[in-house]
Amino acid sequence: MVLYGRMQDKPLLISDFLTYAETYHPAREIVSRDANGREHRYAYAEMAVRAKQLAQALIAYGIKPGDRVATLAMNNHRHFELFYGVSGTGAVLHTVNPRLFEDQIIYICNHAEDRVLFLDPAFLPLAASLAPRLETIETFVVLGGADALDGSLPLESAADYESFIAGFDADYTWPSFDERAASSLCYTSGTTGNPKGVLYSHRSTVIHAMAACQNGAMGLSAHDTIMPIAPMFHANAWSTPYLAPMIGAKLVLPGPRLDPESVQGLIDDESVTFTVAVPTVFTMLLDYLEQTGKRIDSLRQATIGGTSVPPAMIDLLREKYGCFVAQVWGMTELSPLGTMTTLTPAVASLPESERREFLYKQGRGQFGLELKIVDDNGCPVPRDGETAGALWVRGPWAAAGYFRGEAGEVLDDDGWLPTGDVATLDGQGFLRITDRLKDVIKSGGEWISSVEIENLAYGHPDVKQAAVVAVHHPKWDERPLLVVEPNEGANPTKESILNHIQSAIAKWWLPDDVVFVKEMPMTATGKIKKIALRDRFKDHVLPKSKNASPQA
Amino acid sequence: MVLYGRMQDKPLLISDFLTYAETYHPAREIVSRDANGREHRYAYAEMAVRAKQLAQALIAYGIKPGDRVATLAMNNHRHFELFYGVSGTGAVLHTVNPRLFEDQIIYICNHAEDRVLFLDPAFLPLAASLAPRLETIETFVVLGGADALDGSLPLESAADYESFIAGFDADYTWPSFDERAASSLCYTSGTTGNPKGVLYSHRSTVIHAMAACQNGAMGLSAHDTIMPIAPMFHANAWSTPYLAPMIGAKLVLPGPRLDPESVQGLIDDESVTFTVAVPTVFTMLLDYLEQTGKRIDSLRQATIGGTSVPPAMIDLLREKYGCFVAQVWGMTELSPLGTMTTLTPAVASLPESERREFLYKQGRGQFGLELKIVDDNGCPVPRDGETAGALWVRGPWAAAGYFRGEAGEVLDDDGWLPTGDVATLDGQGFLRITDRLKDVIKSGGEWISSVEIENLAYGHPDVKQAAVVAVHHPKWDERPLLVVEPNEGANPTKESILNHIQSAIAKWWLPDDVVFVKEMPMTATGKIKKIALRDRFKDHVLPKSKNASPQA
Repeated sequence: MVLYGRMQDKPLLISDFLTYAETYHPAREIVSRDANGREHRYAYAEMAVRAKQLAQALIAYGIKPGDRVATLAMNNHRHFELFYGVSGTGAVLHTVNPRLFEDQIIYICNHAEDRVLFLDPAFLPLAASLAPRLETIETFVVLGGADALDGSLPLESAADYESFIAGFDADYTWPSFDERAASSLCYTSGTTGNPKGVLYSHRSTVIHAMAACQNGAMGLSAHDTIMPIAPMFHANAWSTPYLAPMIGAKLVLPGPRLDPESVQGLIDDESVTFTVAVPTVFTMLLDYLEQTGKRIDSLRQATIGGTSVPPAMIDLLREKYGCFVAQVWGMTELSPLGTMTTLTPAVASLPESERREFLYKQGRGQFGLELKIVDDNGCPVPRDGETAGALWVRGPWAAAGYFRGEAGEVLDDDGWLPTGDVATLDGQGFLRITDRLKDVIKSGGEWISSVEIENLAYGHPDVKQAAVVAVHHPKWDERPLLVVEPNEGANPTKESILNHIQSAIAKWWLPDDVVFVKEMPMTATGKIKKIALRDRFKDHVLPKSKNASPQA
Repeated sequence: MVLYGRMQDKPLLISDFLTYAETYHPAREIVSRDANGREHRYAYAEMAVRAKQLAQALIAYGIKPGDRVATLAMNNHRHFELFYGVSGTGAVLHTVNPRLFEDQIIYICNHAEDRVLFLDPAFLPLAASLAPRLETIETFVVLGGADALDGSLPLESAADYESFIAGFDADYTWPSFDERAASSLCYTSGTTGNPKGVLYSHRSTVIHAMAACQNGAMGLSAHDTIMPIAPMFHANAWSTPYLAPMIGAKLVLPGPRLDPESVQGLIDDESVTFTVAVPTVFTMLLDYLEQTGKRIDSLRQATIGGTSVPPAMIDLLREKYGCFVAQVWGMTELSPLGTMTTLTPAVASLPESERREFLYKQGRGQFGLELKIVDDNGCPVPRDGETAGALWVRGPWAAAGYFRGEAGEVLDDDGWLPTGDVATLDGQGFLRITDRLKDVIKSGGEWISSVEIENLAYGHPDVKQAAVVAVHHPKWDERPLLVVEPNEGANPTKESILNHIQSAIAKWWLPDDVVFVKEMPMTATGKIKKIALRDRFKDHVLPKSKNASPQA
């Protein structure tokens, strides 16, 4: 018989974030910009009232705990209210990525059985186009006032958000329920198969937020002004809609205008201290800053993830703009925080040239989320920063599977989730993602990283896009084939590209062949569709290899 | 039917703290000083091995999950190992306060049914004296090597710690179990009745630690060196034995030598950045610094709790020594964090004179722990910083009751725990403890704070100790009586004391009478025993009151 502690069984609930902000930081601001650049400002005290109005409106409509409520929206204050108004009642917030192919959106919404869809006015044409095939959505609510419905709305059963919530007041108490209840749903769009839904719980979301704010991760406080540039439909914008009220930070929601002028202007006007974004946002922003001489002096930290960050960007932001770049690796399945750059005393005391190398990695392991890297036999590889293996994760904010059991049992016997990534870990706990597991080339029992070769190929002046895929080899099992889309008008030779690459890698990593394509096949989210390349080149005959595998 | 999230059910366990430190901060140091001032140093990697040895030794001995294992020990590295070696196996660590009266220790250990008692060598005489009446303890283990048993050990069934763990190795995996299982036990010693045991769970301990490290609370990171001066037997030294490994901080365990020279030396030698202590430690330390001109430059924050901190101490530490004083209010029942001083942007931007007033309070509310302050009818009072009421708390690290059901049901219908404190909350979320509920004087339906009058009385040059108790009054129900123990040789008059007090308080708060005693009755933990005073003066006849109640 277990001897239980005699502590309170207070469940961890998402509504607690907002109740805290409303009580302890009532006057802290939320600033939101819409598609026209119009600004909206209010404070947690007012926002909390509106979230309670929304909750009551949903209940009056008939939304019950567990029901899915979808959004097609950018980062704005009404979307923020939905994060609480929906999940706080026990219903499930399903944030849909409007950039997916229409067929994928249809699949996702039908699979989720969403009942109501809240959408930005800008997505009205998209929603109109989708509507006939959306099987479960009963009502569309446009995120705006009555004027948002003006014009040629092609939808039946449509309401505007302000009218939807108008009849309700602040007199509402967030319900208490099992912390393991579902709170939110986010689909991952792989390059193969149908999207799969990650179904977060209140518990996982609260524990994740408490971990993400630690100084070993984002290091946020009430003094921060957080601007998520990463979209709220993509793994909850790194959880920032939860973190900000939890700590009483000011929140800046930039809407769809993410051109560098708008981003710089918001950072400067609102004294933004912390942002999360993909590297391309900062590529454009840095170009703009360099051209205009403008500054982003308030920004103490740029948290950049989604793909590895170019070292030059890290150095420039830090040295010229005083902004620390924290790389972050995550997944929708991880709520999404996996690893994040923070210096330890040991790393901080290294000479600059050595310390830099750690900043170029994808961050450190966090308390609460276990990482393991294993070889083909499932044995842990050394944490030496060199030996790559398949990365697995385990912890209270990692997925145990997918909504409706898609993809079946995904955990191993000890409860670990495969990430599909190949990575190294070093003695300081820093992770480097070297490849996707399905993209790695297994040559003579050793692994070759397609990503590293691609990165080198991108350094060639004539290369617009590069992809390395495995081609069958009778002796080595697999060998790398480099597929290149040249820059417009350029006509590089195979030899010039291999010459460019070969000095920087082990001889046996050098691709056996290079082929040129006019246009790379791409996914909806802008990634190269390697599966299509593999299929296209599966019978490609490699020239007699001059590159020995390491065992040779 | 509840729709559950599809997230991993990884329990929150205390052993995770140590596993994290061992994996991600293996070389970070733990420095420990014993009663003789001898220093012991090792790192998390080695400490984790010893904790695993201890775990196996306990299991081999026959300790099972839920069994209680007691300690009588100061802050040292073996005690630290017990925090993991005991709780990590699923057994319950019972930290006993060696400063209690012997009868209380006997009561506590028998009530807890402790099976093994681990003790510092310094407590051998105490243990020998207790042994005949300890009904359930089978074995005493002295925290040292074989030499610690030398001399006239009067105990049977005694072992030394090093021999106890010597036969075991690092090959041990911490078990996984229900996070609501009991992890640790700490008795509160009230001024009335028997001590009551607070039985922490793994869940409450982990959530508490994640909350305590936030920047809105202790704001700790891997760059900190934490020295708990508060004892590990007292609500787990503000949880520092958990926090330090969770974030990879260096830990300095000062042992029993807490004289100001030792404390200053340790801070300076080990570059301590953060400490937790009661005010008296800093009173002595500041005297020493002022006399010697020595410094504590590494110390960025002194977290001071247990009782309110004198404003002069806060100002001197901050202005002359560059050390921020964070007041903290907590209870054994709160694991122990309740509120803690951190500045919000609004408070930080106030003029110095106004900002100061917030630093003199007992800290701000934290995310995760709800506070309510209610009047006699249970109605919340305004958060105006003026209106005092009874303080209640609710949250995942607050107690739901006491071990073995002592004191019966203590929560109200909504799950709130009474703290026994009287407090105000202000618009910025800062708490001020004004009194203990049982000590407050209820005069004409209004509350008079005994603590505030006592603090004023202490300002009189002839007053050594002061206590205000309620005496029955026919018209006002209760009126304050001031009991004074004068300084040796002093002979103050009633009038001089009342004169000293009256300018600073409302007229109707002025005590109706002053009585002098030779010696105040004291509790084992050094508090004035008001219950004895109330009993002694229950029939005291007040002079005809000249002080009207506010209703008059």
